[in-house]
Amino acid sequence: MTATRNATAAHLFEKHRELLARAAHACATREYFSPFPETPDRYPDSAAALARGHADYQALLGKPFELEQPGEIGRHGEEVSPYTGVPLGIDYPRADVDGLFRAARAALPAWADAEPEQRVGVCLEIVQALFAELPVLVHAVMHTAGQSYAMGYAGSGTNALDRGIEAIVYAHQAMAAVRPAARWERRFGSTTIRLQKRYRLVPRGVAVCFTCATFPTWNAYPAMMASLATGNAVIVKPHPTGILPMALAVRVARRVLAASGFGPDLVTLAVDSATEPLGKALVQHPLTAIVDFTGSARFGSWVERNAHPALCYTETSGVNTVVLESVADLDAVARSLATTMSLFSAQMCTSPQNIYVPRGGVDVGGRRAGVDEVCSALAAAFRAVTAEPNRAASILAAIQSPATLELVGSLREAGARRGALVVDSARYAHPEFAAARTATPLLLRVTPAAQDLYREERFGPVGFVIETDDAAGALRAATDDVRAAGGITAFVYSTRDDFLAAAESAYATAGAQLTCNLTGPMPLNFAASYSDYHVTGLNPAGNATLTDAAFVASRFRIAQSRRPVA
Amino acid sequence: MTATRNATAAHLFEKHRELLARAAHACATREYFSPFPETPDRYPDSAAALARGHADYQALLGKPFELEQPGEIGRHGEEVSPYTGVPLGIDYPRADVDGLFRAARAALPAWADAEPEQRVGVCLEIVQALFAELPVLVHAVMHTAGQSYAMGYAGSGTNALDRGIEAIVYAHQAMAAVRPAARWERRFGSTTIRLQKRYRLVPRGVAVCFTCATFPTWNAYPAMMASLATGNAVIVKPHPTGILPMALAVRVARRVLAASGFGPDLVTLAVDSATEPLGKALVQHPLTAIVDFTGSARFGSWVERNAHPALCYTETSGVNTVVLESVADLDAVARSLATTMSLFSAQMCTSPQNIYVPRGGVDVGGRRAGVDEVCSALAAAFRAVTAEPNRAASILAAIQSPATLELVGSLREAGARRGALVVDSARYAHPEFAAARTATPLLLRVTPAAQDLYREERFGPVGFVIETDDAAGALRAATDDVRAAGGITAFVYSTRDDFLAAAESAYATAGAQLTCNLTGPMPLNFAASYSDYHVTGLNPAGNATLTDAAFVASRFRIAQSRRPVA
Repeated sequence: MTATRNATAAHLFEKHRELLARAAHACATREYFSPFPETPDRYPDSAAALARGHADYQALLGKPFELEQPGEIGRHGEEVSPYTGVPLGIDYPRADVDGLFRAARAALPAWADAEPEQRVGVCLEIVQALFAELPVLVHAVMHTAGQSYAMGYAGSGTNALDRGIEAIVYAHQAMAAVRPAARWERRFGSTTIRLQKRYRLVPRGVAVCFTCATFPTWNAYPAMMASLATGNAVIVKPHPTGILPMALAVRVARRVLAASGFGPDLVTLAVDSATEPLGKALVQHPLTAIVDFTGSARFGSWVERNAHPALCYTETSGVNTVVLESVADLDAVARSLATTMSLFSAQMCTSPQNIYVPRGGVDVGGRRAGVDEVCSALAAAFRAVTAEPNRAASILAAIQSPATLELVGSLREAGARRGALVVDSARYAHPEFAAARTATPLLLRVTPAAQDLYREERFGPVGFVIETDDAAGALRAATDDVRAAGGITAFVYSTRDDFLAAAESAYATAGAQLTCNLTGPMPLNFAASYSDYHVTGLNPAGNATLTDAAFVASRFRIAQSRRPVA
Repeated sequence: MTATRNATAAHLFEKHRELLARAAHACATREYFSPFPETPDRYPDSAAALARGHADYQALLGKPFELEQPGEIGRHGEEVSPYTGVPLGIDYPRADVDGLFRAARAALPAWADAEPEQRVGVCLEIVQALFAELPVLVHAVMHTAGQSYAMGYAGSGTNALDRGIEAIVYAHQAMAAVRPAARWERRFGSTTIRLQKRYRLVPRGVAVCFTCATFPTWNAYPAMMASLATGNAVIVKPHPTGILPMALAVRVARRVLAASGFGPDLVTLAVDSATEPLGKALVQHPLTAIVDFTGSARFGSWVERNAHPALCYTETSGVNTVVLESVADLDAVARSLATTMSLFSAQMCTSPQNIYVPRGGVDVGGRRAGVDEVCSALAAAFRAVTAEPNRAASILAAIQSPATLELVGSLREAGARRGALVVDSARYAHPEFAAARTATPLLLRVTPAAQDLYREERFGPVGFVIETDDAAGALRAATDDVRAAGGITAFVYSTRDDFLAAAESAYATAGAQLTCNLTGPMPLNFAASYSDYHVTGLNPAGNATLTDAAFVASRFRIAQSRRPVA
């Protein structure tokens, strides 16, 4: 058994060796890379694969999800499609938590004892198997998160897999940096002591990976791969309204592990419900060694404070800010902002929310555009996104949670009372799904007196135009938002080198990743795997970066043994 | 000013480039390395330097310690020499804590903006300046910690400096792995987006470094260097009974920083007292970004639970275990154990404490030695260490704290009642310091019924011989000690390959660094910089390893900025 396992896993490393090398090169150079086709039409045997994906998804509906894993104590499922409003009717195994930990611990020794390259090979094989499963995963993401098909394919598909590969690269490098053995000698008095030393990589144990409702795979894949590659087991705890994508991913991982001769229980699913949440019990379980958390700031902060002695990697939420100082082309800037703030109805941790504009206006190629004109340009651009249903559907997609609609409603009321509506929010008619839960963006114009409205993440299609005294005040207020409420991305428009330099320094200190003067078809908040670091860890938006050395280096430890040379 | 600073710091990197390369090679190969002479007689211009060190130390006594640093609100000092019993009479600035943070923050921007290589150069210059200060530092360590001159020179001197260099190597590598800039391009639809990206290393902020009473520099140097090299400031909080070594080190660091054109307030000293401790306030200060802690398990555990959102690196305490299964030469093993358990009166985090022996005895070259015989051999070896005052003084040195003598007394009483005294503890007459606080080791023989006596760190010259059913039970009990109470080192003697393999696996999982079958002049617990990893982080003895990538990788973060290529 051991021999078979080792041979298979070694073969997998060889199979993916070139991919690993290319990905490592991209991580080092931060140049563009992806082994995957970026759009569904270039997926291998595209038409058949995409048809199969749709059929496979349909076949899942209304049935128990087949996932053979230990400790099943019942079934549960409460997902409702944001597109159809209809329950998916899928139920999943509810598991005895202690049983999941026991099973994971039973599978761990062989996984921990495998050579790092063997685990890396298996992890890359899981990534490849997830790519093969992508046609059905896209539908699973659409009908739980509410993403568009295109985003389900790219953002939750290939880009998320790239982030997984990236984590494997860093894990591989961190492990390879530790020499497995050494010979050491030194004189003590008149005697030379010669020691043979062996250094062994020891995994932490069982990791728990919490995934969020709107973008589960993008954070889950890197967290799972970082933990697995370094020898740990992973229990995946999906948001109860977004189980299916992770159930599919867990099933794929279990299949690959079993086929490679390792225990499938290295990856299991812990389903819970809104009424009977498992989160705190999982975080504080005595066998939890690592927690990866993506979700609300409120629970994320509890996790950070209570995970000890487990390691804890979080991405919670933040207020992403925009500063307009001077622009070459106001309409181009407005188009980019409107499109990005409409993308997936701003249900992304990277969506901009607060647009700061100096009261005196913005220089536009030597001319002054006042705040009114800036708001008009933004309003026109937002309306252009939503005017045409096909375009609206491809960009806005659907609203994951009914609570988001309620939030938009309450902010519309407060915003109208305390400021002005620049663009009102409304339902839009999805051309394919008549019952889709939709909302066009709400854009409010306020002053700093309404800070209580905008200095926290307002998850969903809500933006603010905030007047400040001047451009320096805009930058100060925006970076204060980041320090106080967290921030992942930031956007500055200025034709002045000195202002851009000041913005780079201010945002670097506050810890938001800055994009300057970008217009055109790339979404402003697009984060490229292998090139863009995601989350700095310097503000409350999360403590972990995708992907840096710190994301992987603590997931294993080094145990040594030394003895006299024979 | 900036130009001067950069030129000086760049020069320092060049000055130490070869040392850095040699140290990096040693970290990779784990082979023996040190740039320093290992014994005082080989110190440059030895006789004069050592005489100067003694004179410099005498000149410090009974006076205010000259340390110009901000926020002084009074003076304090309560150190008493374990060798003379006489107060040192030195007082140090008590500082307003907020003032130290303010000063550190004021000095930070220029330090953070310096090139990583500039900071590395300055850090290596600090290490070199500390080596130049070593002759007086040895006396400072002797008369606060109670170490012997030889240990003060090597363990608290050159070896500690080597651990500092090691941390600089890892910090340099972690920073160098992040590319400062990249050009990225990708097609979006029919447009190619070309972005210029810049990646900036951002330090966390202000680190607080707690140092312990018995071995302050050994943990302090790597922690300080790891934080400084990555761009942070450091406030050093020494144990109130062991301020002088750290006051000297802080003064040296401040001098080098100032001479390099940086703010000396990047390194300051926060002195407190047993009656007015500053520890909790420092850990929970809103500006504390990193905590390095060496000290008691009790406060260390509090630090780990309460440091959030600051990063936290700890070394607390543990129960270091020995398993005797079979030996080639019982007397040689007993000699090594007795010497190591006597070294600095076992006031080291690496000192063995619990010796497990199978009830049926130990195989000695085919012959069975019963537990009685093992105890006799140990007793003879312990007595040989203490029989001759010069030898006793060079090995046992002095007892740092009066509380240690009380502990030995209470364990003697409990041990005699619940087990047997193998070797009794007594004062020994130090040949040079008649008033020295000394105690020869206490060795108790007990059964597992006395687990409450031995399953915690008994800091000081106390050991236990514990009978177990068999060798497998001995290994199980010993690794259970490690899991329950922490453990840094472990020692196994066996002539059986299968037993050694089982021990390697068991201790690797428990997370204690194992030494097998070592006899001879090297202290069993000698931890070689560049070669031996210190603390695994897998058990309660601490969460940080000297030095691995995880020790440095989180001390800085990566902030990026991207903009269209002009």
